[in-house]
Formats: sequence, structure tokens, C-alpha cells
Amino acid sequence: MLIVKKFGGTSVANKERIFNVARRCIEDYQKGNDVVVVLSAMGKSTDELIAKAKDINPNPPKRELDMLVSVGEQISVSLMSMAMASLGVPSISLNAFQVAMHTTSDYTNARLKTIDTERIRNELDSRRIVIITGFQGIDKMDNVTTLGRGGSDTTAVALAAVLKADMCEIYTDVDGVFTADPRICANARKLDEITYDEMLELASLGAGVLHNRSVEMAKKYGVQLVVRSSLNTNEGTIVKEDAKMEKMLISGVACDKKTACIAVIGLQDQPGVAFKLFNHLANHNINVDVILQSVGRDGTKDISFTVDEDNVEEAVAVMERHRQTSLICDKIDVDRNIAKVSVVGAGMTSNAGVAAKMFEALYDAGINIKMISTSEIKITALIDRKYVDEAMRAVHDKFIVNR
Amino acid sequence: MLIVKKFGGTSVANKERIFNVARRCIEDYQKGNDVVVVLSAMGKSTDELIAKAKDINPNPPKRELDMLVSVGEQISVSLMSMAMASLGVPSISLNAFQVAMHTTSDYTNARLKTIDTERIRNELDSRRIVIITGFQGIDKMDNVTTLGRGGSDTTAVALAAVLKADMCEIYTDVDGVFTADPRICANARKLDEITYDEMLELASLGAGVLHNRSVEMAKKYGVQLVVRSSLNTNEGTIVKEDAKMEKMLISGVACDKKTACIAVIGLQDQPGVAFKLFNHLANHNINVDVILQSVGRDGTKDISFTVDEDNVEEAVAVMERHRQTSLICDKIDVDRNIAKVSVVGAGMTSNAGVAAKMFEALYDAGINIKMISTSEIKITALIDRKYVDEAMRAVHDKFIVNR
Repeated sequence: MLIVKKFGGTSVANKERIFNVARRCIEDYQKGNDVVVVLSAMGKSTDELIAKAKDINPNPPKRELDMLVSVGEQISVSLMSMAMASLGVPSISLNAFQVAMHTTSDYTNARLKTIDTERIRNELDSRRIVIITGFQGIDKMDNVTTLGRGGSDTTAVALAAVLKADMCEIYTDVDGVFTADPRICANARKLDEITYDEMLELASLGAGVLHNRSVEMAKKYGVQLVVRSSLNTNEGTIVKEDAKMEKMLISGVACDKKTACIAVIGLQDQPGVAFKLFNHLANHNINVDVILQSVGRDGTKDISFTVDEDNVEEAVAVMERHRQTSLICDKIDVDRNIAKVSVVGAGMTSNAGVAAKMFEALYDAGINIKMISTSEIKITALIDRKYVDEAMRAVHDKFIVNR
Repeated sequence: MLIVKKFGGTSVANKERIFNVARRCIEDYQKGNDVVVVLSAMGKSTDELIAKAKDINPNPPKRELDMLVSVGEQISVSLMSMAMASLGVPSISLNAFQVAMHTTSDYTNARLKTIDTERIRNELDSRRIVIITGFQGIDKMDNVTTLGRGGSDTTAVALAAVLKADMCEIYTDVDGVFTADPRICANARKLDEITYDEMLELASLGAGVLHNRSVEMAKKYGVQLVVRSSLNTNEGTIVKEDAKMEKMLISGVACDKKTACIAVIGLQDQPGVAFKLFNHLANHNINVDVILQSVGRDGTKDISFTVDEDNVEEAVAVMERHRQTSLICDKIDVDRNIAKVSVVGAGMTSNAGVAAKMFEALYDAGINIKMISTSEIKITALIDRKYVDEAMRAVHDKFIVNR
């Protein structure tokens, strides 16, 4: 078997944990498996590097920021190889250059394009454990890029895809995917299986277990994922195409507390207005989530949408630049005190009552809904941020506990 | 003009110093010069990385050690580029991969083979300051290598050679090359010029200003070096082929306190004995310095030689392994309390009295000489280590002060 194992920053935060990871990898290796390990930077080291950069230049060039932070993973992988050597097992660390991990040139948020497997195959054939830097890549000019936060998951899945791995294990500090965040809903329970689509909705809702691009890629290439804990040997949650439904309407309840809502009031009601608005934002790499369009006063229209809290300033600045030309409107309102609460589950497609049941849960808890958005397998309500934990518990109790 | 400027670890040890270096580089850039900057890792960061490695594995694989420590320079160059950006000057950082800095595969002690100048030229043509990682390279398999301590000097000279730079400035924390270490000889004075050969002898004696491989390379490719301080704008010392002699017999007095002497007693007196002995050591990359062969008792011969203190254990171990086969001898003695004191100067080739004058200085100071070695431009005496400072002063006074 060829197994790709990915460990996050907390799993390699110190010497003891590095050896813990080394031993887990060696266990699989000694059973005769080919083992590829993907690592993030140790503990908070990426944050420390970014702080160092901001101290020199509060607005550092993104290319140089990637050049800087990419050292974090290189430190992890070389130390891991040294740990394995001291345990008597041959291994080799490889960085993005060495596996030709090609990406786009979008610094700090690049997308993987191709990976050269030759070097990895050769090292595996020599019976070495191969330890690869997560999170980073190189563009066609050999500049260093990074994949954005959580990008190591994507690295692991991409490697599993190109190497046609039998399994891709994502190690984290929780036991797997839960029906809700156990810190908020004490009665949340671990799922044995979940579909890619459900995971995707949960990931994009900031459930924090998997990076959503990694799930997209796993779905696209049929890579079977396992999310499990690096602290124990529990089974974890399997993410795959045809997860069994467990007779549950929904797989999980998730929230996103980092949302802000921007309302553009009084736009001219003519073709192309929405296109121009979102095109401006897309040109600046600003992701828009829930979008709602309604009829405004005097033949105008209003468009509201949510963005990540971190992108609000830039989004508003971009729009202000075009207010005199392609984006004539009365005003732009920003609401930062928003949170999203969602129920996710492939089971809901064939059940008409899910939305009503969710709204009932919120109504019972006395929580007002500001916006609603639905997809095939997800229903999202935007609410006041201060009620988010309460809303999570109300919805989770309704669907999971009292089902 | 194309100028290569190299700054060591102390010159970029903190934010203030990074900006100091940035400003010095920008000054040359704004005069219209093309500027290439070579940096070492910040302050003691290489030592810290090595300590981290040894904590994980007291004897880490050298390949992984190079993979680890090479991040130090990558941090320096990216932060420097950010500093320049904040001063409004365009620059780009490049690591060993990005300039295809090819070396041999001798991890921790690799030698440069080729450098691709295309990327550097392109960036200079775009009027960017180009900031390159010193000390590191890649081998033909794309593994990361390092050039050994002080290797950043070599990187700078190699870049100056391939780019046909007009000048290669090596910045350090002293004003230039002195007639002796000013911490030992208070009356030492700075040289305006020195020849490559003299510098080479001083460098190999651990005068500490320049890495000897960098001087060898500068001589080979005719790169004019300037050694100067990063803390002031004093002129520094020019190292070139035809430095003016200043009517001095010798250019400097140097010492090496890290020497150990190994004596192999009672070797068979037959052809090939010396070859076998030093071939064994060469195979383990152990550099031998002064060699002395004398007639031993009963038709045997004795060979004494000096090695760097750090290599004593390995050298003895290598020899012990062959004592029953190719290296039959009575005993192997080790003396660790040795120091070398040398006078260096192109002027001495035509003056027969230099050696006598040096021995007189030591005799006057009451210091016993254990071994003597001479070259065209250098005379070395091995003495008891505890007298080394005294010996330096005696010799320096004789040649430089009282000339």
C-alpha cells in the first residue's frame, strides 16, 4: 500500500511530538507500506515568521512573504528526517522545488498545477520514507509560492492523487469530523463516514478540520480521505463519494464567525450590474459567499453579499473606486456583526422539511434570521454574531440529538 | 558598474542592521549601479538551527542538516527585500535553486560548480537589487548543500566572477585586513592593499576576515575584493594580484589556536607509506596542514602532521582502523596544546633573513619552537598554545612595529 499521511503544525510543535509522528509513520513503513509524509510548519512558527516580516515592513511584498514563510515547512521536514534517522529508519525530506510542486503565481494563495512524481517514486523504491513540505509550491519562474492557510491538506491530497495512493490520512488534534463543534455543542458526536460534498460544505463553513480546496481535489480525483487524531489511534472519519447515510437527515451543523455582510443599496436596474460588481471583486481575489438580490426603491435594486471579515476593507475600497463609473449606487453598508449557521447533509435533498425544521429551531431559541441561503445539501442562516453558539446548540439538538 | 556586496550574519542580526545594510545597497543602486547583495543567516541563527538538529539527533544526516540550515539565509534575503520595499526600492530575493547555484554533493562542505546568471541578469535589467542567499547550493539531484562555514564569501566571489562584476565588497565588523589581530597586538595596523597569495595564507591561518576558498576563487578569476566594515564608510583593504608592497617584508602576523599535532611513530621505511597514510585521511575529507617526516629508530620513520582540532578524533579513528594492514606503526601520539604562529608576506621571497628574524623574536621571548614549516610567502612555527598571544606580539613587534 502507498499511504500519504499529513500532520499539522501542532502535531510537530516540539521534539516529543516530532518523535510521536515519526513512530506512527515508521509503524506503517515497517508493515511494508510505502509512506509519504506531508508536514506543516512547527506550532506557531508561520505566525512568528509573518510577525517578523510585518516588523520590517507592515505591508511586505507577497512574493517575499512566501519566500520567507516557506522556510517553516522546510524546518519541519528536515527535523523529521533526522528523528527517523535516530530511530534507525531511512528517510528523505523534499521541498517544493525538489518535487517540482508547480503552482500558479498567486503568491500567498497559489493553486497547484502539476507535481513531478519521479523523485518521490525513486526514493520510495529505495525504501525510504519520503517527507514533503506542505503548503508550498513554485511557479513557472521558480518563485516560491504558498497555497494559503491550511494548504498542507491540499498538498497531501494532491500527492495522494498523483501517486495514486491507497489512502490519504489527515492527522489533526480531534478524533475526526463531528456533527458540530464539540466545544460549542457538548453532545456532538463523531461521524464514521461523510461524503465529499458534505465535507466540502462543512469545510467552507470553517468547521476547521479540512481545507476546502483539499476536499474539492479529493472529490475530483477520488482520493479517499481519513481525518483522524495524531494523539490516539481511534478510527477517525472517512471522507468518500458514497458514505453511508446513517439514516440522518444532516451530517453536521457548522458555523462561521468570521463573516461580514456588505449591502450595496440603490443600484441601477439594468443588465450587467451584478456581473460588474462581482467581477471587480474577483479581480482582486476576494471570495464572495452568500449573495442576495432584492428590489430596491424607485426602480433600483439592492445586492447584499457576505465576505470573509479579513476582506471587508479591500472589498469596500474596490467598490468605492468604481462608484463613479461602473458601479453607480446610493450607498454601501457594512455589517461586521454577522455569523453563519448551517446544516449540511446529503440526506436533505429528498426531504422538504429540513429548512422549516431549522428555522423552527432558531425561532424557538428566539434568534432572528437576517439572510437565508440554500444549496442542494446545505441551508445557511445569517444571524447576529452574539447568538451564534446558542443557535448552533439549538439546531444541533433539533437535528442530531432529538432525531 | 556591477557591484557584488556581501554582508555577514552580524550585519543583518536585527531590524536596525537590516535597514542599515539596505540603505548602503540603495546608495550604490541610486548612483545607477547594478547591485547584487549576498547575505548570510541572521546573527547566531545557523548555530541555533544546528542546536535544534542536535537535540533531535546528536548525529544528524548531513543531507538533512544542510536542508535545515539553508533556511537561515532564505530568511535573511526575504526580510532584506521587504526592508528595501519599505524604503521604496524594488528588489528580489533569490535562493540557491532560483539561481541554479550548482555544487558538488559534499553535504556541509560542498564546492561550487556552476551558476546560472540568466535570472540575475534579467532582474538587474529590470532595475531590481538582487539579493542572493550565501553559503548554499544545490547538487545535480536538486538536494540542498552548504559550502561550509564562511561559505557566503565564496558565494559572493563566485557571483562576482560569473557576472564579471566590477567590484566585490566583503563587509565585516572590522575595518579591513590588519597586520595582526588587533585584540592581541594593540599596535596592529590596517593594510590598504594585500595580494591574493598573502590573503590566502592569512585566511588559511584563521585570520578570520575572509574564507580561504573565496580568496582562491578571487585569484583564479581575477575578482578584485574589498574587505571593509559595515559599521562605517572607511576605505577598507583591497585584495588583488599586484598589491603595492609598502616596503614591508611581511604583510601580517597570524595565528591558529585550533591546531592539534598527530605524530605517527615507527612506520616502516618503505615507498608508499606516506601516500597511504594521507590517502586514508583524504578519503575522510580530513585536511592536513603542516607535515614533517623524520628518521625514526631502527630503520623506521616518524611522520608528524597537524590537523584542525575538530578533526583529531576522526583522524585517529581512521588511522587506528588501518594499523593492522596498511599503516603498521609503533604508536600514534596526539598533542592538542599546539598553536601556529606565522608571518606572511610576498616581500619575504627575496629576503633570506626573514626566518632567522622570526626565530630570533621567539627566542627573545623565551618561547620554544616545536615544528617549523615554510612556503614561498609564509613561515610557520608551531609552539605551545599557552604562549601564542605572547608569540604574536613578539613577532609583530619585530617585523611591523620596529621595521
